[in-house]
Amino acid sequence: MTDRPAAAANTPPATLIAGMGARARRVAAVLAGMPTATKAGALVEAAAAIRAASATILAANATDMARADAAGLSGAMLDRLRLDPGRVAAMADGVAAVAALADPVGQLIDSRTRPNGLALSRVRVPIGVIGIVYESRPNVTADAAALCVMAGNAVILRGGSEAAHSNRAIHAAFASGLAAAGLPVEAVQLVATTDRAAVGAMLAAAGLIDLIIPRGGKGLVARVQADARVPVLAHLDGINHVYVDASADPAMAEAIVLDAKLRRTGICGAMETLLIDRAWPHAAQLIAALVGAGCAVRGDADARALVPAIAPAEPADWDTEYLDAIAAVAIVDGAGAAIDHIARHGSHHTDAIVAEDPALAERFLAAVDSAIVLWNASTQFADGGEFGLGAEIGIATGRLHARGPVALEGLTTYKWIGRGTGQVRG
Amino acid sequence: MTDRPAAAANTPPATLIAGMGARARRVAAVLAGMPTATKAGALVEAAAAIRAASATILAANATDMARADAAGLSGAMLDRLRLDPGRVAAMADGVAAVAALADPVGQLIDSRTRPNGLALSRVRVPIGVIGIVYESRPNVTADAAALCVMAGNAVILRGGSEAAHSNRAIHAAFASGLAAAGLPVEAVQLVATTDRAAVGAMLAAAGLIDLIIPRGGKGLVARVQADARVPVLAHLDGINHVYVDASADPAMAEAIVLDAKLRRTGICGAMETLLIDRAWPHAAQLIAALVGAGCAVRGDADARALVPAIAPAEPADWDTEYLDAIAAVAIVDGAGAAIDHIARHGSHHTDAIVAEDPALAERFLAAVDSAIVLWNASTQFADGGEFGLGAEIGIATGRLHARGPVALEGLTTYKWIGRGTGQVRG
Repeated sequence: MTDRPAAAANTPPATLIAGMGARARRVAAVLAGMPTATKAGALVEAAAAIRAASATILAANATDMARADAAGLSGAMLDRLRLDPGRVAAMADGVAAVAALADPVGQLIDSRTRPNGLALSRVRVPIGVIGIVYESRPNVTADAAALCVMAGNAVILRGGSEAAHSNRAIHAAFASGLAAAGLPVEAVQLVATTDRAAVGAMLAAAGLIDLIIPRGGKGLVARVQADARVPVLAHLDGINHVYVDASADPAMAEAIVLDAKLRRTGICGAMETLLIDRAWPHAAQLIAALVGAGCAVRGDADARALVPAIAPAEPADWDTEYLDAIAAVAIVDGAGAAIDHIARHGSHHTDAIVAEDPALAERFLAAVDSAIVLWNASTQFADGGEFGLGAEIGIATGRLHARGPVALEGLTTYKWIGRGTGQVRG
Repeated sequence: MTDRPAAAANTPPATLIAGMGARARRVAAVLAGMPTATKAGALVEAAAAIRAASATILAANATDMARADAAGLSGAMLDRLRLDPGRVAAMADGVAAVAALADPVGQLIDSRTRPNGLALSRVRVPIGVIGIVYESRPNVTADAAALCVMAGNAVILRGGSEAAHSNRAIHAAFASGLAAAGLPVEAVQLVATTDRAAVGAMLAAAGLIDLIIPRGGKGLVARVQADARVPVLAHLDGINHVYVDASADPAMAEAIVLDAKLRRTGICGAMETLLIDRAWPHAAQLIAALVGAGCAVRGDADARALVPAIAPAEPADWDTEYLDAIAAVAIVDGAGAAIDHIARHGSHHTDAIVAEDPALAERFLAAVDSAIVLWNASTQFADGGEFGLGAEIGIATGRLHARGPVALEGLTTYKWIGRGTGQVRG
C-alpha cells in the first residue's frame, strides 16, 4: 500500500522534482483562491483520516523502527522516529487544531486612496509552493502539510529515509482526507524516492519551489542553507543568553534562569549562556542553584572567583549551542557589556534580560538584534504556540520575510491591488 | 579629491568587502537605535552638501562623460550617465524628500498579551546592511543611500565603472553631510575599486550583507540573481498585460492602453501585451489607435483578422519585454483565458484589467498572481511615488519579504519583543 510504483524510484531526481513542482504550481493557483471553510474542512477530513489509519501508520512505523534499530540508530533518534497510538492521535489533533486557526489569506494589510482616486490595498496571498526537508520525526509530515495548506500553499515534503514507511502512511492518510473534501491531492506531495539527490534537486528548484523550510538537526539546516538557490526560512543555532541585571529580583532571576536552561535542554529556545551584572550581589547563589539543579557550569575567571567549583570556560564555549545541561557563565560590566557580548556571540534567536529597572530593560530590548528579545521571561517561550500563533512551521533567525516563530502569516506574502476609474499617468 | 588611496585599489576584493562589511555592521547597530530626527537631519545636511558640491560633481561627471564618449558608449547610456545642474539639484531634492518621509523603524506591527501575562509585540527594525549594485545612473548613489539610511540601514554602494568619478564625488558630498550631522560616515560606503570581482565578493558576502538590491539593466539583474548567496530584492522582467474585458468602456480602454504602452516605453511598468476579450466589439478600433499612435503591433491570427495591417506575433513575442513602442496583441475568450495567458507568460510584475463588471474585475484581481494588479488604471502607475510611498528603492517581483514598489518599509524587518513579570514555561 505505501510503496510507490518502481517508475518513480527510477526517475532522475531533478526530473522528479520538476514534475512535482509543476503539479504543485498548478494546484497552488487553485489553493490561493480557496475559501477558508474549504481548506479547514479538508484539514478536518485529513485529521479524521489519520485517526482512521492509525493501525496502518503504526505498522509502517514498526517497519521503520525495526530497520533503524538494526542499523544501530541512537536511542534519541529512535525516540524521535517512534510513533504510538497517543502520538498518532496527537498528530491528528494537531492537524484539526490548524483548521481552527484564523486564515491570513485575503487579510487587508493596509490601504490608501491616492489624490487621483486610485484605491490601493495590500492583501495577504499565499507564498505558492513550499518545500519541507526534514529528518526523523514523522509527525512533521502532517504538521507541516496542515500549516502550508491552511495558508493556501502547495507543499512538497521530503522526509528522512529512516522514516520513509511512516511518512508514506501518514501522507497517504492525509491525501485521502484532502480527496474526501474535494481538494486536489497534489496540494501535499511526498517525494517518493529516498535518493539524497532529491534534496539537492529541491534546493536548486528556483522558480518551482518558492521557499524551503528545513526541519531537523544542525547538519541538515547547514546543508540546506549552504546549497539552496531557493530562499530558506530556518535557524541554524539557538545560542541564547539571559542577562541578569544589577536591578534583578533574585527569586525571579533564579526561576527564569533555571527554566531557561533546564526545563528542556534540547530545544532551540534553551539558554546556553548566562551573563550576570558584576553589580548584582546574588551571582554566587544563582550559579550554585544551577549547579545544584544538575547543570554543568563553565565560568569565566570572575565567575570562578565566586564559585571555584565550576569548570573554566574556553573561548569556544561562548559560541556553543550545548542543547544539554551545560551553561557558560560570564560576569559582565552592566547591560552595555551584555549587549556587546550578545552581538559578538549570539545567533539572533532569543535573548532575555532579568531586571526591575524599566528604562534599562527597554534599552536592552531595543539594542539586542535578535528575532525574539524578552524582559523578565524565560527564553523557553520561543515557540509559536506560546506566542499565541497556534502552531509553528519553525523559528527563523534570518532577517527577511519572517522572524522568530513562523506560523500561518509567515507562510503568506502580499500583493498590491489597485482599483481605479480610468486613471492614466499621462 | 575623489580618488582613493592606492592601497584600496590593491586590496583583494573579498578582503575589501569583508572590511567594509564589518564596518557597516558596526555602524548598522548605531543607526538602528538612532532617532528619526537625527537621521532626517543628516539627510538634510547631505542634500545641502550635494547642492554645495554641484560644481565638483559636474566636473567629475564631465570626466566620466569624456571617457564614455571616447569608449563609444551608446547615446542612451550617455544620457543615463550625464548630469547637469538641474539633475544635481533634483538629486539633492530627492535626498531632502526622503528626510520628510515617515520613519518605519520602531513602528508597532501588532501586539498581544498572552493568558500568562506575557506582553508580546512585533516592532519594525532595520534590515541591517544593504548592498546596492548599480549601473550608469549616478543619481542612484544619493537616492539609494538616502532610503537605506532613513530606514536605519548601513549601505555599501557599488556603481558602474563608467560612472566612477561621478559616484565618488556624490558619495564624498553625501558623506560630508552625514559627518556634519554627526553620523558615522561608514553608514554609506562606496566600493573604491572598479574591479568587477568586487561585485562577486558582495554577492557572496552572506552574513556581512543582509540584502542585495541591483539597479540597472536585465544583464546586471540576471547576473546578481544567478550568483548571489545573499537574498536579492529585484525584478528581472516587466512583461505586463492589459486585459480589456467585454464589459470595458471603449474610451477608458483606449486611454489606459495608450498610456500603459506609450507614455514611457522604457520603464518596467510599461504594458507589453494587450489581451482583448473576443466579445468586446471595439477591438479593431483599439488596435488601430495603438498603430495610429506610433506603436508597432504584433497580433495573433484573430487580431490580424480584425486589423490585417499588423504584423504576426511569433511565439516568443508573448514572453518578450520590448521596452519599446511595440506591443503583442491577442484575442482571448474572456477573463479566464486572460488569467491563464498571464499565468503562463507574465513576469509577476504589473497586470491590469479594464472592465465595467465589478464581479469579473474582482475575480481578475484575485486570480492574477502578480506583485501589482490593477483595475481600470494604467500599468504605468507601478511606481513607489505614484503609490504614495514617497520614493522607491526598486520594484520586486519575488514572492518573499516585499513585493511591488519597495520603499522605506521594505527596507525594514521586525523583531518580537516580550515584556514579562517573571514568566517561566515550567
